[in-house]
Amino acid sequence: MKKLINTAGSVVDDALNGMVAAHPTLRVRDKVVYRAEGPRPGKVGLVSGGGSGHEPLHAGFVGYGMLDAACCGEIFTAPVPDPIIEATMGVDGGAGVLHIVKNYTGDVLNFEMAADAVEGVEVASVLVNDDVAVEDSLYTAGRRGTGATLFVEKIAGALAEEGAPLGEVAAVATEVNQRSRSFGIALTSCTPPAAGKPIFDLPEAEVELGIGIHGEPGRRRVPLAPARELADVAMDAIHGDLPLRGDLLVMVNGMGGTPLSELYVVFAEVAAYIKGKGARVTRSLVGNYVTSLDMQGFSVSICLLDETLARLWDAPVETPGLRWGR
Amino acid sequence: MKKLINTAGSVVDDALNGMVAAHPTLRVRDKVVYRAEGPRPGKVGLVSGGGSGHEPLHAGFVGYGMLDAACCGEIFTAPVPDPIIEATMGVDGGAGVLHIVKNYTGDVLNFEMAADAVEGVEVASVLVNDDVAVEDSLYTAGRRGTGATLFVEKIAGALAEEGAPLGEVAAVATEVNQRSRSFGIALTSCTPPAAGKPIFDLPEAEVELGIGIHGEPGRRRVPLAPARELADVAMDAIHGDLPLRGDLLVMVNGMGGTPLSELYVVFAEVAAYIKGKGARVTRSLVGNYVTSLDMQGFSVSICLLDETLARLWDAPVETPGLRWGR
Repeated sequence: MKKLINTAGSVVDDALNGMVAAHPTLRVRDKVVYRAEGPRPGKVGLVSGGGSGHEPLHAGFVGYGMLDAACCGEIFTAPVPDPIIEATMGVDGGAGVLHIVKNYTGDVLNFEMAADAVEGVEVASVLVNDDVAVEDSLYTAGRRGTGATLFVEKIAGALAEEGAPLGEVAAVATEVNQRSRSFGIALTSCTPPAAGKPIFDLPEAEVELGIGIHGEPGRRRVPLAPARELADVAMDAIHGDLPLRGDLLVMVNGMGGTPLSELYVVFAEVAAYIKGKGARVTRSLVGNYVTSLDMQGFSVSICLLDETLARLWDAPVETPGLRWGR
Repeated sequence: MKKLINTAGSVVDDALNGMVAAHPTLRVRDKVVYRAEGPRPGKVGLVSGGGSGHEPLHAGFVGYGMLDAACCGEIFTAPVPDPIIEATMGVDGGAGVLHIVKNYTGDVLNFEMAADAVEGVEVASVLVNDDVAVEDSLYTAGRRGTGATLFVEKIAGALAEEGAPLGEVAAVATEVNQRSRSFGIALTSCTPPAAGKPIFDLPEAEVELGIGIHGEPGRRRVPLAPARELADVAMDAIHGDLPLRGDLLVMVNGMGGTPLSELYVVFAEVAAYIKGKGARVTRSLVGNYVTSLDMQGFSVSICLLDETLARLWDAPVETPGLRWGR
């Protein structure tokens, strides 16, 4: 295993310290990354989190127009309730706090325990479960939460920044999740630092369709095929579950080890597919946003926009991982 | 070889088509990416380019506040003079055009031939040669141009956007290059699609210090070490060549296959090193900006800022690879 780390045990803290050193708008305590300026009175607080290894998700999305805090577990391990409680209390500006939780059993359980334990703060929760690849999985009952988490965090974050009440922020988060779908394909495994070796074997000539973001098995393995065919597999799965129509937000996301040029090759095919269905790409992201350490591969996430969601997507954002308009 | 491509021969065109599909502010012709709106009368045009495989450099830096056109060669291959001539004529708004050229023999030669062949457009050139690792290399006489190219393109682009004349834009580009240094370390080789296999062998327990962005040999190979030690090697090389002082712009750049979390681990060490020398990180970038396909590893680039350079760095920019303030 070759990694740019000091020790396998310190990698999460070391990376968070680096993020805070690079972005003075952030601070970190107990593996929770906060906006340095603290909660704004009257603004709904947004807290997300989950296992580390998916950077920039979630800590890289803390900042103006997005999250108020991200609770980071060890690599691929849910954060425990205590820091979630601390984060929830810490970001409350008196208007309540929204928990944005990816649908993995550990995350769901620990965020629920934290929400129950918090006193004096109104807490709402939204569960993200956009991955159409499989029902139930290694760490999940029901569908997994993947790329759409970024859409939920951005759009709910923009509405919270405008001063909307908790009920409305939670409602828009739920709506974004309902309007979003994702599908991922792996070319290689990933190697968690503590494991020291790839966590699954994928033969040189095969890819895994419907991969999870922790290497959970997908639908099936098939021979490596041209990008066009792989993009079509992903888009057929998405379109078969939620027919594409109207204006779309589209993300072609790298799993961490795939070069940007290849993601653009995939994006061209995804855009052609969408055009063929009579829908339109009006917003897009291409890059590494919801990753699995050094895994090679990609996922596609789409969200069916309306005017309000498009406006909230376009609103200014200033985080390490997503920035525009400021 | 596992890659998200259609064919090895079409990868550059396919990726550029994807970039233009994702970013309607751009258009592409003959592997040259332009701003879609065309030249602005009176603004100095900025043209850069080089071999592909370093994305987002260069095409991903075309847009407001940065480049007007990027000439993309095949993977790791300089663009030929004809598209450079076409790009130079195409972006001229009557105020002349600056060529920003990384110091590789093929690039230097072809940009020079293009500059000589262009008629009716005043052309100035700046050579970027920031890499302190080696004098002369596989494709270079003198030092190689790497990460500082981004600094030059951003800062000169901001000054051009303000309406400064060609002489001033060329002067600030030269100054940024003179004030910048870089050093890279590879954990693995990269695999160009046409080669179909890694272009050099690096044993599992070794890293290459001073790697070039096309896999050119560096200073030496050493056993894999903690991130802190590798960061110190890079920073000692930079500091030994250009002593760190005052306010610094610092980029910890991924080579394409390294996860963001590891780059933040390195950034923490780089920031500690700089603090130890009594200098200050006041601007930073952490991510994949000047890459080598799927290579694992990182480079550090620093620029000694002054007030003017910091102001131009902070100016609004809107490109696929770098965006803020708009």
